Amino acid sequence: SSIFDPTEHPHRRYNPLIDEWVLVSPHRAKRPWQGQVETIDEDSRPSYDPGCFLCPGNTRINGEVNEKYTNTFVFSNDFAALKQDTPKTSTDDPLFKMATEQGESRVICFSPDHSKTLPQLTQQELISVVDTWQSQCHELGKQYNWVQVFENKGSMMGCSNPHPHGQIWAQDQLPTLVNKKHQAQQAYMATHGGNLLQDYAAKEVQNNERVVVSNDDWLVVVPYWAAWPFETLLLPRFAVSRMTELNSQQKSSLADIIKQITIKYDNLFNCSFPYSMGWHGAPYDEQTHPYWTLHASFLPPLLRSATVRKFMVGYEMMAEAQRDLTPEQAASRLRDLSDVHYKDQK
Amino acid sequence: SSIFDPTEHPHRRYNPLIDEWVLVSPHRAKRPWQGQVETIDEDSRPSYDPGCFLCPGNTRINGEVNEKYTNTFVFSNDFAALKQDTPKTSTDDPLFKMATEQGESRVICFSPDHSKTLPQLTQQELISVVDTWQSQCHELGKQYNWVQVFENKGSMMGCSNPHPHGQIWAQDQLPTLVNKKHQAQQAYMATHGGNLLQDYAAKEVQNNERVVVSNDDWLVVVPYWAAWPFETLLLPRFAVSRMTELNSQQKSSLADIIKQITIKYDNLFNCSFPYSMGWHGAPYDEQTHPYWTLHASFLPPLLRSATVRKFMVGYEMMAEAQRDLTPEQAASRLRDLSDVHYKDQK
Ligand SMILES: O=P(O)(O)O[C@H]1O[C@H](CO)[C@@H](O)[C@H](O)[C@H]1O
Ligand SMILES: O=P(O)(O)O[C@H]1O[C@H](CO)[C@@H](O)[C@H](O)[C@H]1O
Repeated sequence: SSIFDPTEHPHRRYNPLIDEWVLVSPHRAKRPWQGQVETIDEDSRPSYDPGCFLCPGNTRINGEVNEKYTNTFVFSNDFAALKQDTPKTSTDDPLFKMATEQGESRVICFSPDHSKTLPQLTQQELISVVDTWQSQCHELGKQYNWVQVFENKGSMMGCSNPHPHGQIWAQDQLPTLVNKKHQAQQAYMATHGGNLLQDYAAKEVQNNERVVVSNDDWLVVVPYWAAWPFETLLLPRFAVSRMTELNSQQKSSLADIIKQITIKYDNLFNCSFPYSMGWHGAPYDEQTHPYWTLHASFLPPLLRSATVRKFMVGYEMMAEAQRDLTPEQAASRLRDLSDVHYKDQK
Repeated sequence: SSIFDPTEHPHRRYNPLIDEWVLVSPHRAKRPWQGQVETIDEDSRPSYDPGCFLCPGNTRINGEVNEKYTNTFVFSNDFAALKQDTPKTSTDDPLFKMATEQGESRVICFSPDHSKTLPQLTQQELISVVDTWQSQCHELGKQYNWVQVFENKGSMMGCSNPHPHGQIWAQDQLPTLVNKKHQAQQAYMATHGGNLLQDYAAKEVQNNERVVVSNDDWLVVVPYWAAWPFETLLLPRFAVSRMTELNSQQKSSLADIIKQITIKYDNLFNCSFPYSMGWHGAPYDEQTHPYWTLHASFLPPLLRSATVRKFMVGYEMMAEAQRDLTPEQAASRLRDLSDVHYKDQK
């Protein structure tokens, strides 16, 4: 047929946040999978594991003893990728350019309960997670330009401990991807007058096709330019550029939307859904950046089932990201799932 | 200490080919690994497998029968990500920008022998692989601007069939990563007068610290800006912008260098070393691009052993690539390995 059908015809979509394209080949979803099958993470764990480095009161690998924490708990990563005391130096050769980097890497335990994950925490416990993210950003933002809040969930995502936790890496320079978003949002406002992600959120609410969940303050969409099969973008429905600017009401509604989207994820393949997630907002440079909108991304690897993932390899590593179903198909599948966690059903 | 030590202190290195940075945290290599352990691919296979879709004379999933090929064999991917007959259309909205893409996806069997991988092929057989890459580029380059030659090796890299094979995807537009390299090489020549990768190759030969293997025509280095632990860059030591320009002597020496580097890789952890590899050169647009240098990249995931990989997740997905050993350390480990394949030793 000569009429374009997004669910049939290969096309590229443009990601305006990072000025990159993604190849959409939706008909590829039909191919049978004969490749690597993943092992499912143990889905039922005790509330306390004496061998876990993150449980309250346990001794970590470097000999330090964790507080007997009852809420969230933050400590310096025992094998930090960024350090405070790095000597300053840099080179200027265009082909051999480097600069040392100062920073800190911290771990944040979301709950003392070893058996839980984000969707299984109560609203109050989730508010504590958001509060901790905010206070960490506040504290580290005083000293560093950039504070990267993120979570690796599941062994498939390189996470080596199932205890619910995330990380916070702070540093002086804007990392590569963040800098792209910084430039792109700035350029969009210069060209179009508006705020890129605020304009985008408004259009997605109107259109509704890619919306997964929402509440009065927040919106989760499969972005028009999603690369990972069930990638989502968590957007505020109000103007805000940094985590530190959220008020109590906005933090409470954020806890609610995080519970909503992570329940949808677990319900997709009836498993504890692996992903990397992280927050991006304006740098902590004491300037205002009206073109920046605070947002989170969830980047989950699963494609077909709890054990069959999408491999971003070969063409994707050498050329550009490629996906096997449309963002609209992904959004509709997630939206149609129950909002009750599969473990709490029937 | 206040003196910079690249093997101790976190620093960022700049990749001039794509205008991105990578965080080097070499002290991280010391942390114990308690996360996911990969399964090793079956290392001994029959020369012919009646159930393999790629072996000569076998029937593929769509019912087509493979030629009884004795050398290399090329066919259209049964689940092609790019197709010739896609209707042309595009949109211009800055937030919802798309364009259909025309192209082709082909599979190239490197050998009829199911049991072999590139390092186990003879010089003559490897020349056939290079010849096939070249003739495919020649043929597809007449119709498309871009021809992406690549190989996914190993189930860890999403490869679903161990029969030695690669892929060729051709399309009209320059993919995202290729376009970055196009811009960066053009800008380098405009600013510095020289060819980026020719200048770089000359300096690496002189310095020798990151060179892994070489012959009269080719050079393999762990690039100064490598992201993956044992990533390498295969560079010509003569001016050439496209695969189609290689003469017989250069193809023969290319076969030799491919054998050298893939033997080193297999010898690193005494396993069939997984990777994605691919070729980049000037687009097939009938113009000359003196700033372009033809080159290949090998992007292998393994970090510590045949079963422990590097996860590019979390910080890497949300911020920038991060590595746990220096490129110089990686180069020296690869360089010091035997140049006889471990299976042919003793
Ligand atoms: O085409 P194959 O080998 O079935 O599939 C593999 O390579 C493709 C191209 O790099 C990727 O898109 C797939 O995710 C991967 O599994
Ligand atoms: O710090 P962890 O959880 O031990 O390690 C994990 O997250 C890091 C940050 O995203 C990555 O660099 C590692 O590759 C990954 O295994």
